[in-house]
Amino acid sequence: MAVSLILLAAGQGTRMNSELAKVLHPLGGAPMLAHALAAGGSLGPDRVVVVVGPEGEAVAKAAQAADERAEIVVQAERLGTAHAVAQAAPLLRDAGGDVVVLYGDTPFLTADTLDRLVAARARHAVAVLGFDAAVPGRYGRLVTSGEDLLYIVEWKDASAEERDITLCNSGVMVADAALLFDLIDRVGNANAAGEYYLTDVVALARERGLSAGVVLCDEAETLGINTRAELATAEAAFQARRRAEALEDGVTLIAPETVFFALDTVVGRDAVVGPNVVFGPGVTVESGAEIRAFCHLEGCHVSRGATVGPFARLRPGAELAEDVHVGNFVEIKNAILDEGVKVGHLTYIGDADIGARSNIGAGTVTCNYDGVMKHRTVIGADAFIGSDTMLVAPVTVGARAMTASGSVITADVPAEALAVARARQEVKPGLAVRLMERLRAIKAAKAAKGGN
Amino acid sequence: MAVSLILLAAGQGTRMNSELAKVLHPLGGAPMLAHALAAGGSLGPDRVVVVVGPEGEAVAKAAQAADERAEIVVQAERLGTAHAVAQAAPLLRDAGGDVVVLYGDTPFLTADTLDRLVAARARHAVAVLGFDAAVPGRYGRLVTSGEDLLYIVEWKDASAEERDITLCNSGVMVADAALLFDLIDRVGNANAAGEYYLTDVVALARERGLSAGVVLCDEAETLGINTRAELATAEAAFQARRRAEALEDGVTLIAPETVFFALDTVVGRDAVVGPNVVFGPGVTVESGAEIRAFCHLEGCHVSRGATVGPFARLRPGAELAEDVHVGNFVEIKNAILDEGVKVGHLTYIGDADIGARSNIGAGTVTCNYDGVMKHRTVIGADAFIGSDTMLVAPVTVGARAMTASGSVITADVPAEALAVARARQEVKPGLAVRLMERLRAIKAAKAAKGGN
Amino acid sequence: MAVSLILLAAGQGTRMNSELAKVLHPLGGAPMLAHALAAGGSLGPDRVVVVVGPEGEAVAKAAQAADERAEIVVQAERLGTAHAVAQAAPLLRDAGGDVVVLYGDTPFLTADTLDRLVAARARHAVAVLGFDAAVPGRYGRLVTSGEDLLYIVEWKDASAEERDITLCNSGVMVADAALLFDLIDRVGNANAAGEYYLTDVVALARERGLSAGVVLCDEAETLGINTRAELATAEAAFQARRRAEALEDGVTLIAPETVFFALDTVVGRDAVVGPNVVFGPGVTVESGAEIRAFCHLEGCHVSRGATVGPFARLRPGAELAEDVHVGNFVEIKNAILDEGVKVGHLTYIGDADIGARSNIGAGTVTCNYDGVMKHRTVIGADAFIGSDTMLVAPVTVGARAMTASGSVITADVPAEALAVARARQEVKPGLAVRLMERLRAIKAAKAAKGGN
Repeated sequence: MAVSLILLAAGQGTRMNSELAKVLHPLGGAPMLAHALAAGGSLGPDRVVVVVGPEGEAVAKAAQAADERAEIVVQAERLGTAHAVAQAAPLLRDAGGDVVVLYGDTPFLTADTLDRLVAARARHAVAVLGFDAAVPGRYGRLVTSGEDLLYIVEWKDASAEERDITLCNSGVMVADAALLFDLIDRVGNANAAGEYYLTDVVALARERGLSAGVVLCDEAETLGINTRAELATAEAAFQARRRAEALEDGVTLIAPETVFFALDTVVGRDAVVGPNVVFGPGVTVESGAEIRAFCHLEGCHVSRGATVGPFARLRPGAELAEDVHVGNFVEIKNAILDEGVKVGHLTYIGDADIGARSNIGAGTVTCNYDGVMKHRTVIGADAFIGSDTMLVAPVTVGARAMTASGSVITADVPAEALAVARARQEVKPGLAVRLMERLRAIKAAKAAKGGN
Repeated sequence: MAVSLILLAAGQGTRMNSELAKVLHPLGGAPMLAHALAAGGSLGPDRVVVVVGPEGEAVAKAAQAADERAEIVVQAERLGTAHAVAQAAPLLRDAGGDVVVLYGDTPFLTADTLDRLVAARARHAVAVLGFDAAVPGRYGRLVTSGEDLLYIVEWKDASAEERDITLCNSGVMVADAALLFDLIDRVGNANAAGEYYLTDVVALARERGLSAGVVLCDEAETLGINTRAELATAEAAFQARRRAEALEDGVTLIAPETVFFALDTVVGRDAVVGPNVVFGPGVTVESGAEIRAFCHLEGCHVSRGATVGPFARLRPGAELAEDVHVGNFVEIKNAILDEGVKVGHLTYIGDADIGARSNIGAGTVTCNYDGVMKHRTVIGADAFIGSDTMLVAPVTVGARAMTASGSVITADVPAEALAVARARQEVKPGLAVRLMERLRAIKAAKAAKGGN
Repeated sequence: MAVSLILLAAGQGTRMNSELAKVLHPLGGAPMLAHALAAGGSLGPDRVVVVVGPEGEAVAKAAQAADERAEIVVQAERLGTAHAVAQAAPLLRDAGGDVVVLYGDTPFLTADTLDRLVAARARHAVAVLGFDAAVPGRYGRLVTSGEDLLYIVEWKDASAEERDITLCNSGVMVADAALLFDLIDRVGNANAAGEYYLTDVVALARERGLSAGVVLCDEAETLGINTRAELATAEAAFQARRRAEALEDGVTLIAPETVFFALDTVVGRDAVVGPNVVFGPGVTVESGAEIRAFCHLEGCHVSRGATVGPFARLRPGAELAEDVHVGNFVEIKNAILDEGVKVGHLTYIGDADIGARSNIGAGTVTCNYDGVMKHRTVIGADAFIGSDTMLVAPVTVGARAMTASGSVITADVPAEALAVARARQEVKPGLAVRLMERLRAIKAAKAAKGGN
């Protein structure tokens, strides 16, 4: 059965105290809404419709970055969840199949839970994801009779008896597309908040003699985020889960509580990750690689046997082949380091290709920017780049070539050649001491005049 | 009504196991006593008297650094709290108004609590700050009758019945100045410890027919610090509170538990602070700025739209204007970076002024120290400093000027000029390979001789 | 009485999901088995026998690195703990004295507990270390009568009544050497698992009319490690204990929860350690030194009054004398920095000796590697190394000598001399602006052609 998704992402999130839309606040290095889209994406949906609010351009852009199939509809006025879903009707009413309604601020749903929800359509016209709340508070309540869901009541509208129910509504729902929009057309707003509630479709379906059901999940999956404190709690929960999964997968985390994963981080078995490592989006670390303490990685690939850090930064486009070593105070950006390359200390490699086994001396810089454009540096295999070499791109250093320490390389160096660009050393006997004496005299004179 | 403060800071703190006086141990980047002075300072006191012990010079200095109005008196012998307060008599007995007694090792009192304490003087001659203790332990007990405080009894002197009381004494107290010193003159030391207790003034006031009262506060506010373990707990509590406040204020903290604030840190709404950021004293980060992971800041200002790090250090006097970018392995000290300046990688900028939109290449160093004195570097707007430029201060680079990569700039560069200070590149064909062969032969010969 | 140790380290540890043997996984920077060896070593054993499994070369090597007296025996087949101990019989059966059996995956035993265990031999032929388990689960149970240990029963073989016992077996045991191996020869494998259990020696000793006893310890000491999650918990417990000990010893830890100690870290009283500091193996920090935030140290010595970091890395062989300062983005390896040396910024010092009070400018590199061999740099006292000096080793700079900023020093510099190796600065008026205009024109032309 075909499935489409509707992701509601139009909320204002005023309790976040932020100019940034709530669903764009980051969780695991990705905007919050990307989590629900990823979970929903596991259903293999035909279409993905994201409902954004007025001035929702940034949300639309982030949704499309997270899932390129995302189609955007705008809810110009915030009149309730049924009204929000109704904005997708022009796209999905005649699309056939089922529609699953998700929320941009509910990031922890699992693929397995959504599978179970969709499977419940075999038994019910409408199925709602519910949870047994430890503290039901102001959640909507699910009123059931045996296996059947009778109706959903918002807390504001609930009787004292209904408020005693602990089975609560997550808001997530699945229904036949045509039916859903047909019912939504009939939802009214005669309630305490004066809003059009999506939850009303359950009772409307029942009135037509259709069956509604509940699928249960763990309360933790339905966690919604409304404040920055809740977001911080959610981030901690996300990280705790990812750390436990990594240990389970055979990753060596010396101090798991200090490692920060992104939504899409992949780390192989027996890879070693030291304390205080931050993974931004898009990182793959192969089995048996080592990321030492105090590293920051994003958009990069670290192969088997490679060692990184401590104090290294790998930026997008950094590709480290097997047995590469990137040491301390080194930054790699948009560069391919072939097998066995060593970049040990205090170096910036940007926009470069470095051949196998080449050794890059401390203090080397690929001067990739001329003030207007970026250019590429190419180094062959088995080259030896002396310390403090400036490689003024575009420039090529051939295989087995060498640059003398302190050289500024502005022209290509042929294979096997030595390039030198530095002045001859001169020694001036006694001058150091005379210079120091002169400086001290100047300082003393200044002090005498009341300067410093 | 005028108020003066007495801060007791003469304790030895032997349980800290330290050469450093207890009240100088840091909490939130400031000496412990600065916290109580800051809370007391919110009362707008006329005078601030700090009682230090013998050899209390360092404490005196820190107190005056924290509050420049602080007047120091020395308690030559440690004979009890009443004796300590009595040292302030020559300064405050005739000052008029009220006196509030605070403690250098009780850092968590809030301004609001002190306001309430002082307000209680409308109803009582003496008011004491008390708290309902979860575990009363060895705290002094407040013995009350209805609204009246009858007397305070130290644990050592308390009866079993008195020890059952859970209302405990924080030691903080307010009274009319003249009355307080008059009562203190009458305090004796006929108790289990043989000390002159400040707490005795309550009973003495009552004997004169004066009224004493209790103002309650949360036990957490009265937390005293006696060991390094307690200090660590206090630091954790301080940080937890500051992190929660920052979230409340709309700051984006990706991993709040890894961010360390100082007492005076100011971070604006929608500023983003990544994991593992340490704020030393004196930092202001404007709304919308971003401090990335692994940064260390002190005494600096980061303006709106600026981005810092990862792996950056801003030291005292670093002023980053709007949209400045300071990247990885960069240190900025005593330098003003005008709007849009970019310092991306591996750079030391100290004692400098950099004009708007200038780009500072990787590996640049302002050589500000000649071995005797520090000098300033001035760079105009829209300049382009090539990678690995040494700027030997004092030196000026004009607007729109450029330095070639690898240059040592020892003389001023006029606006719009290019400065070059480097040798021409020579290429010696085949020499790299011959050099390597020779080195390998030397190594082999050494190994044959049993060297390495 | 002479004591020998047998450390069982032959287990496969399949639940670790790792190619690395379980007992080699690191805890406090040392392989797990080093902890039990260190605790056992406190007994001053005559001999130390480590039982490794087939393919146990790496374990054997680590054991010998942790305790050079370690003798290795191989258990070719894993037939149970008695069988494992039996492999040591050829070495210890006639050695005399007592044998203590320890486990490579039980790292938390204390020296005090082992002392008490061995002391119990005065009263019993065999003594077993037991603990009262909060959750006895599948531990073996100790069946006692008064002071006597009757027998040990494995959980798999225990009756319901025996499973109700909460006194559990740690596996650690002491017995007379000759007796132990004699009893082990008699252990059978007629049990649920078909294994030869070391625990059976208790009942066998009793059958001979000999006495067996139990020594109790805290359950935390007997913690065994079977999964990576348990290892992470053990690491956290290790760190918590070391942090508390450091505070107790008078070390100032600003944020103890962010400091990671190794098994052998030594930090003196009133040393200050900032947030986010990682100690690898072999570090000593003297009283009154300061390690600032974000530092990584291993195999180094930091003397009184020295300051390190933030963002510094000290590698093996770094020796910092009194009042040395190592600043940000600085790496020191195999180098002796004499009293008062300052290395403030962006520097790599490797294989070097630096004389007292010398100042090393920002961006300096000791070019210690020529592509084949490593060489040493020697700098005298009171030298001034200008920023961005390349010291091409082997090279010597004399006392009170100076190098000009940006120089590549390839030949020795005599004492008091100034060495310069750089080109003269040329200024080309207006060229910067013309260059930029040309670059912008090229970029525009490329864009027009559809390039970028």
